[in-house]
Amino acid sequence: MSLLIRGAVVPGSTEPGTARDILIEGGRVGLVAPGIGAARASGADVVDASGMAAVPGLVNAHAHSAMTLLRGAAEDMELGPWLSEAIWPREARMSPEDIYWGTRLACQEMLRTGTTLCHDMYLDPRAVAEAARDSGMRYVAGYALIDGLDEARGEAQREACDAFFAELPDYGSLVRFGLAAHSVYATCAESLRYLGRLSSERGLPLHVHLSETEAENRDCKASRGMSPTAYLDSLGALGPRTLAAHCLWLDERDWDILAERGVTVAHNPVSNMKLASGPAFDYEAARSRGIRVLLGTDGAASNNSLDLYADAKIAGLLQKHHYRDPTRFPVGAILGAASKAGYAFFGADAGFAPAGAGSEGLLSEGFLSEGFLSEGAPADIALIDLSKPGMSPVCDAAANLVYAGAGAAVDTVIVEGRIVVERGRCRDEATVLAEARARAARIAG
Amino acid sequence: MSLLIRGAVVPGSTEPGTARDILIEGGRVGLVAPGIGAARASGADVVDASGMAAVPGLVNAHAHSAMTLLRGAAEDMELGPWLSEAIWPREARMSPEDIYWGTRLACQEMLRTGTTLCHDMYLDPRAVAEAARDSGMRYVAGYALIDGLDEARGEAQREACDAFFAELPDYGSLVRFGLAAHSVYATCAESLRYLGRLSSERGLPLHVHLSETEAENRDCKASRGMSPTAYLDSLGALGPRTLAAHCLWLDERDWDILAERGVTVAHNPVSNMKLASGPAFDYEAARSRGIRVLLGTDGAASNNSLDLYADAKIAGLLQKHHYRDPTRFPVGAILGAASKAGYAFFGADAGFAPAGAGSEGLLSEGFLSEGFLSEGAPADIALIDLSKPGMSPVCDAAANLVYAGAGAAVDTVIVEGRIVVERGRCRDEATVLAEARARAARIAG
Repeated sequence: MSLLIRGAVVPGSTEPGTARDILIEGGRVGLVAPGIGAARASGADVVDASGMAAVPGLVNAHAHSAMTLLRGAAEDMELGPWLSEAIWPREARMSPEDIYWGTRLACQEMLRTGTTLCHDMYLDPRAVAEAARDSGMRYVAGYALIDGLDEARGEAQREACDAFFAELPDYGSLVRFGLAAHSVYATCAESLRYLGRLSSERGLPLHVHLSETEAENRDCKASRGMSPTAYLDSLGALGPRTLAAHCLWLDERDWDILAERGVTVAHNPVSNMKLASGPAFDYEAARSRGIRVLLGTDGAASNNSLDLYADAKIAGLLQKHHYRDPTRFPVGAILGAASKAGYAFFGADAGFAPAGAGSEGLLSEGFLSEGFLSEGAPADIALIDLSKPGMSPVCDAAANLVYAGAGAAVDTVIVEGRIVVERGRCRDEATVLAEARARAARIAG
Repeated sequence: MSLLIRGAVVPGSTEPGTARDILIEGGRVGLVAPGIGAARASGADVVDASGMAAVPGLVNAHAHSAMTLLRGAAEDMELGPWLSEAIWPREARMSPEDIYWGTRLACQEMLRTGTTLCHDMYLDPRAVAEAARDSGMRYVAGYALIDGLDEARGEAQREACDAFFAELPDYGSLVRFGLAAHSVYATCAESLRYLGRLSSERGLPLHVHLSETEAENRDCKASRGMSPTAYLDSLGALGPRTLAAHCLWLDERDWDILAERGVTVAHNPVSNMKLASGPAFDYEAARSRGIRVLLGTDGAASNNSLDLYADAKIAGLLQKHHYRDPTRFPVGAILGAASKAGYAFFGADAGFAPAGAGSEGLLSEGFLSEGFLSEGAPADIALIDLSKPGMSPVCDAAANLVYAGAGAAVDTVIVEGRIVVERGRCRDEATVLAEARARAARIAG
């Protein structure tokens, strides 16, 4: 099956005003040219993209997708009671089916706002994978080890993890499984060591929450005599496959360790600000060391949206405000963090790029290069309706995307050459909404 | 002409799950009931609102609408070169027709994202008023005195202002004219005094930029021996009709003065963060003194969007982050600042409420009360499509509106009983887009 996108504007190309046709074959970009004739595209389904811009799908590097069911469960609360009174009691009532439908709702929300690849960590990776497959969205579903520092539980989880990866279930070409350690305060030492080893051996991403709160740092220093970063490093859990989310409470030595180990970090500006988790993520500390920075939404309970374009804006605003420097985290770098840098980490088709393969995307610079529509690249593309609010005039296409609400202007989304959003709508919307609403009501208790 | 909204959810009502019909007659709410029969609504046009929530239109309290033509003109720059190299040269090339079309584009963007009343300050209030009228949007267009501290220019401007208000042009029921002093650094003392007097005498809002930057404060103290707030007060320019935008660099005494004079303030979180203008707006300093807080987008050049729902989210995040307190600026207060408090200041139909009339809306609390759909209230209503990303499940309707991207879920907008957005689209969109794009390109030079 092939697909022809007819007459799209390609921002960042050498002639950005010229409309291009994009021929997609076998889930990959075949040809990009100002006019592709009917003969060359014979048999292709045609998408009329006049008045639209073609841009890469975004990468959400840190999500707990099924928490869509907890959206708005609690507002304006301190982290402690927010978790113990609102979040954990609801999560305790969630079944694999709930996680499936919550993830389906998350996929709809991400796809409809232009995100095509999600890196997830949640309670049941099979339910997440199934939902991703049924949604037609690329996913890296994390198999998470969370034991509350109970060594016996940790051992049982490691055995289950071994069994899982020995007979890895197949959810099709879009879905991969990664590894996840919840954090230094919820995953025991032996499991952290095990995950670091497994990640290296099998080339799997290792997802971990790192230094999200001041309390995490304080407790780790008290009990382990070192920072969470140094502690993870002492267990071999930091490497070029590690994706560390948050990274708010790092000192210079911690940043140096992350740089030395080639760790990639995920910045989650909305969740951090909403929960008042700490100072601001220090983009310059990462950039100046060549540490790759990605962006994430975190879960809908602390965001409450999964529109990564909206979060990209807030990421820029936060750096400029907090460090009192309007030149900080420029618009091209923001877009790079939300897209190109993610492809560099996960591989363009989420097939897991070779670790440390060159510096491509390392600094998160660039985005709207000709490159993203090069022949052979996976066809994960969003078409942005330029007549939507904020998208005109186009003085600066990248600035419109980041700062003027591009998530709301997404008209069509294509993943691996298949149309998954058409005129702003996903398939199965009514079913997913009805299921998600009913399950959220039940979980609320 | 009458209009019947059929089957809307009304968040905040005593039975929020029950669908209501809303009958609109003569531009005002007539009746709200679970089922209004055909006889009572005979002859009314019907809007099917099943699956939608009816909410009040928002109030954008500080805008320079026509700056949509400068959207993305310059990014990631220091304020000085941003103004002198990017903004002012373009503004110098703008004609009244450019301002008209730029404002038309702004009206489309605001209406489509649920804002129905805008308080504007720009170079030509007639062009602004004409655009608002033709867009079917409520506007308070500021007649601005900007003289660069040139007393002779100031005098000529005051004469022109007298003439303007002596024969006030009529742009229909939706448009009112207010007064605007640019700032203490761009409007001479005699004009500030004059505007304060005129505002009191005629009951007109007086719009002024106040303590947006540290430099403004420093220069004012050096040249006038007092803070901008104290200086405006010494000239009689602060009163219950005054709306002071930004208010970032205020000390305790300045806040006390604003409270004593009954001044209302407009907080513009995105513009302040993007330009790295200062510390964070101190919501608690205002709230604790009973100072009314509204929200504004500022111009599209420094935002770059006019979706006030998106800015409401950022307003909440900024308070929580900057003051390290997740309970600060709770969701109900944010919605109040974006709506009810604005109606309290401008009057629900922008007919200018009596100054200091009661404490209604004073603290910006509340929003989704039954009150907004009470009989006789102006029918300025947005219908939110609950199937759009972020709007489900509805654990907390106010949280979904503020934090989950309601601007992108606006389906229908009604102003004074007339439908101005239908299925997400305004009338005249193609014309407005084409004009705005062509004019933006010309202004860019």
